[in-house]
Amino acid sequence: MTEVIAYELAKKQKEISVAEFFERNKHILGFGNPTRALVTSVKEGVDNALDACEESGILPEVYVEIKNHEDGECQLIVEDNGPGIVKKQIPHIFGRLLYGSRFHAIRQSRGQQGIGISAVILYGQLTTGKHAKVTSKIQQDRPAVVTELAIDTNKNRAEVINQDIVHWEKPSGTRLEISIIADYTRGKRFVYDYLQSNSIVNPHAQIVFREPDGTEHLFERSSEVLPQKSVEIKPHPYGVELGTLIKMAKATKSRKLSSFLKSEFSSMGDRTTHAVCEKAGLDKNLNPKEMSREQFLALHKAFKKVKIMAPSTDCLSPIGEMLIKRSLKHETKEISPEFIITASRPPSVYSGNPFQVEVGLVYGGSLPRDAPVKILRFANRVPLLYQQGDCVSTAAISSIDWRRYGFDQPSGKGIPTGPAIFLIHMSSTLIPFTSESKEAIADIPEIENEIKLAFRECARKVQHHIHKEVRRAKTREKFELITKILPEIAKKSANMLDKPVPSLDKVITRIMDVVWIEDLIEYEKASAEPAQATLFESSPEKREGGWITKSTIMVVNYKNQPQKFKLYAVIPEDAVVGTVTPKPSKVTSNYIQWNLDSIQPADKVDICFELAGLEKGDFDENDLYIENINPASVIGADKWEGE
Amino acid sequence: MTEVIAYELAKKQKEISVAEFFERNKHILGFGNPTRALVTSVKEGVDNALDACEESGILPEVYVEIKNHEDGECQLIVEDNGPGIVKKQIPHIFGRLLYGSRFHAIRQSRGQQGIGISAVILYGQLTTGKHAKVTSKIQQDRPAVVTELAIDTNKNRAEVINQDIVHWEKPSGTRLEISIIADYTRGKRFVYDYLQSNSIVNPHAQIVFREPDGTEHLFERSSEVLPQKSVEIKPHPYGVELGTLIKMAKATKSRKLSSFLKSEFSSMGDRTTHAVCEKAGLDKNLNPKEMSREQFLALHKAFKKVKIMAPSTDCLSPIGEMLIKRSLKHETKEISPEFIITASRPPSVYSGNPFQVEVGLVYGGSLPRDAPVKILRFANRVPLLYQQGDCVSTAAISSIDWRRYGFDQPSGKGIPTGPAIFLIHMSSTLIPFTSESKEAIADIPEIENEIKLAFRECARKVQHHIHKEVRRAKTREKFELITKILPEIAKKSANMLDKPVPSLDKVITRIMDVVWIEDLIEYEKASAEPAQATLFESSPEKREGGWITKSTIMVVNYKNQPQKFKLYAVIPEDAVVGTVTPKPSKVTSNYIQWNLDSIQPADKVDICFELAGLEKGDFDENDLYIENINPASVIGADKWEGE
Repeated sequence: MTEVIAYELAKKQKEISVAEFFERNKHILGFGNPTRALVTSVKEGVDNALDACEESGILPEVYVEIKNHEDGECQLIVEDNGPGIVKKQIPHIFGRLLYGSRFHAIRQSRGQQGIGISAVILYGQLTTGKHAKVTSKIQQDRPAVVTELAIDTNKNRAEVINQDIVHWEKPSGTRLEISIIADYTRGKRFVYDYLQSNSIVNPHAQIVFREPDGTEHLFERSSEVLPQKSVEIKPHPYGVELGTLIKMAKATKSRKLSSFLKSEFSSMGDRTTHAVCEKAGLDKNLNPKEMSREQFLALHKAFKKVKIMAPSTDCLSPIGEMLIKRSLKHETKEISPEFIITASRPPSVYSGNPFQVEVGLVYGGSLPRDAPVKILRFANRVPLLYQQGDCVSTAAISSIDWRRYGFDQPSGKGIPTGPAIFLIHMSSTLIPFTSESKEAIADIPEIENEIKLAFRECARKVQHHIHKEVRRAKTREKFELITKILPEIAKKSANMLDKPVPSLDKVITRIMDVVWIEDLIEYEKASAEPAQATLFESSPEKREGGWITKSTIMVVNYKNQPQKFKLYAVIPEDAVVGTVTPKPSKVTSNYIQWNLDSIQPADKVDICFELAGLEKGDFDENDLYIENINPASVIGADKWEGE
Repeated sequence: MTEVIAYELAKKQKEISVAEFFERNKHILGFGNPTRALVTSVKEGVDNALDACEESGILPEVYVEIKNHEDGECQLIVEDNGPGIVKKQIPHIFGRLLYGSRFHAIRQSRGQQGIGISAVILYGQLTTGKHAKVTSKIQQDRPAVVTELAIDTNKNRAEVINQDIVHWEKPSGTRLEISIIADYTRGKRFVYDYLQSNSIVNPHAQIVFREPDGTEHLFERSSEVLPQKSVEIKPHPYGVELGTLIKMAKATKSRKLSSFLKSEFSSMGDRTTHAVCEKAGLDKNLNPKEMSREQFLALHKAFKKVKIMAPSTDCLSPIGEMLIKRSLKHETKEISPEFIITASRPPSVYSGNPFQVEVGLVYGGSLPRDAPVKILRFANRVPLLYQQGDCVSTAAISSIDWRRYGFDQPSGKGIPTGPAIFLIHMSSTLIPFTSESKEAIADIPEIENEIKLAFRECARKVQHHIHKEVRRAKTREKFELITKILPEIAKKSANMLDKPVPSLDKVITRIMDVVWIEDLIEYEKASAEPAQATLFESSPEKREGGWITKSTIMVVNYKNQPQKFKLYAVIPEDAVVGTVTPKPSKVTSNYIQWNLDSIQPADKVDICFELAGLEKGDFDENDLYIENINPASVIGADKWEGE
């Protein structure tokens, strides 16, 4: 009797609570083994702390402590100086999965799902049976609230064991204490790596990590400036799914299609709204709640047919090339790399979600030459430590033929081998992770493409750099030969023949037959002396205690004709230009331009400029271009291709 | 004012419905792009159909149809002959995420989470705005129920649009019709691959796939026997987390610790329960509901200190080596492989979850020699198509040095190169997938180890096979030389000398100096004649229409001493032994043994046995062993190492 079966089966069919689900599938959230559980717990705690501080405009100071007990039990403490959490929200934030503030907002943040920190509590309770303790203070002159809580997994609700008030020195902040089963011995290296990587992409954060034996590691702040706060935006028509569109229309307060489109989507002005409605063959005055599926379908198709402005990208908070370079320099000091190169792409969009890719490349020094390049991956300023093989960034890097940029790579595919570290950072309002453990970015064509473009640009810069070095080295050899050995020979010959030493300038010039450009960069502590102070009037905050970058460029005409051309020195956007000699013909935020008029054969011109607002070492290589002269006859600068 | 911030933040903190969560993160469920969305949808539909049929003891007949519309919209139909679903459960099963019958049961099944099929509906509604249609019939003489439904993602509940009754020819079954945005052109190959792989591990299932252009593919059943039904078991003490133990104790109906342990865990008899309580220092009569965390901790630790029997493994339903071999043979016909080898491990346990690993290896034929081996991965009879790089099976295969088994593998690590297909099937009550999309098995040491052991066994068999072939080929060369050329020479010499041709038997024997064993396998259609029928009395159902496998073994003594030894022929467990000549000294379910007494030099013994209950080709190579004779003097059989 089949009927019996269907009814029998029906008896067993029941609801599964989301907490039960994740309790059973804890590996999905990154708690698959005691090593990863430790790293994941630290990560969730620190990510939450950083998000809270940044949202509130507070420079983050995070304290992480691990105490290692017997039987594999660790106590983890994560404390921040953020805004704190109001008393009645504490049980929800820490004791419920899928509860948070960032899910419904289209804006860049580390956490999005409202799962992470509750998952740590869930894991702790599952493995040690102990409650979590949360201390939170929201205002200077008020006491802190201490909450001891557990999670009722059948209901996915917090069970508050105890709530009390205590005195806490901090002006405001949150402190989580939790016991978990974790493998500290194996996990500590990953925790350290995670915190170090974190400080690369969060130069504004200060993190202290205290090990069980009392050793303290300080990851210092290398920037005092908070990242630009990301702004919440509305969904973009290009990315909205038909189902979401229908759902939005059913929930809208607008009574007319046109106002619905204008008020609930980004980039929809009067003109675009009009064009979309026309393309869809829909009356602008339709009540969105009364539209049929076919009408929505027409509207949805019309979105794709009309050119709509890209979504605003102030919802993104990229790190910036300068900060990436500075961080990489800071963190790779011991490697003494030959050079560090960065590239960033303009913001782009996938399924209506704005995103931006930044990459960096550290080359040479003591990095191993026969190992695959090391890849550091980041998403919304969070280091991704696992599942590299499954990440779109790996696919993008693997698809580039790195052999022509000086790397080893069998058959021109796969991760190249060479002395380099590759860094990739993706910022987005929605990072498409392959799973809840948030370790790998899904294989989305638009993203893969942007990463490829960024790395290609980076690779080109590498090639350019190597090329320039090689060319300069070759010419330098020739140069040394003729400027040192030729006069020696002349002198000796003259002595032997008992004749005066001849002037060799013209000979050297004829042999060299180039315009030689050489440069030097030096750093000086900025003082607050009036003479200098006036230089930087425009941005006085950059003056104190900073560094002055001094760049000296020497141009020698080793050609036998007078030379006249334009010279460009590219400067970082963040820099403030100080004294420039000789007088430049143009100064923009991107470059300084000089018109060099008739430099006579064997003549030398000294050019000098000062930059303020940069850290020591931020600007460590001049990027020089020339115009109105054959680039083949210039060593040390390339052809100016326009801005 | 920090207070303001905390309150401001609190306003935005709210619950996220699980449906909303997965709607936003659809790539996590395998709907990341239109190609995968198609494959995932087919997969979820077919998995559900197979689970339903098997649970109800019905041989599955599944019909899959895809209709390709314009604008990338596909209509997918999946129909089965399962038990159907009772009317009031339809909205829950199809319209709620995290709702199902298999989550709370410890038993092997394809679906576990109650997410899959609802996710397909969710994706369809999101991308096309259309409702899903479910037809279900639970009894022969009753009409079917047709339900049109959508999912209210804010509530994670079904919205029933319409429910009606219709006439349906089928005795019982379920039919799902759904529209989704999918890329049929790119996806069809994956759908086909998935269905083909499916039929390898589900030889009892018949699947018909109808393409949009009307082409029908039939994946025939190659076995009429349903897999053994997996039994539900209780959790094993070794795998229970402390938190789960506490939760179970709070919910138990038992009033005493001893009865709680005995009734709610597997492998806990009187003696073990006593030992555990003693080790934990706990009174057996304690009320489990009143125990403290410390007492639970002591109990939890005591579990690990006491030897507890492994969980019963009848909750598992492995495929079996014979069926794997048969399926692989069936599916690789066109490749004409040299050999197919399988290996299976005994059941094992990770975190208290029983699991079992089976592997297969197809070698040679037209498989490419310069490409990485192809890996077919399966979990609970479901093909895994994506994320191979992230799967524990890849890690296990990569860690074996395949070079000594005749494969190419740079530095002895990574996926080997060679003309082979590797198959791996893991059965478990809980497959630890790395993510919701259920494509890769997490890196759990116990599982990795079992996979390694299984592949090592397989590799050894490969080596053994190759070794045997090489050795036999060499001896055969010698054999042919002396049995053909020597008599030729003798004959010619005799003619020349005008003497009679001498008998060469002794000479050949002296030169060969081995016992030569050769075998032949033939298949005959079994008839139902009385003479044969009696042979198979023990299992009459295997008689009709089947095949008789006839194995003939020839033993020749080419040594100059009489030989006396034991010969073993290994037979498959599923086989039924028929006529055996000469009379064997022993027949077990695993082998037949003969005592061969004093075979005189140059004498030959013919041995023959018949097997029933096998398909043609199931048994295609004799596995022969010898005892009480120096294995070095035998060609064609190896040393018997015991059972």
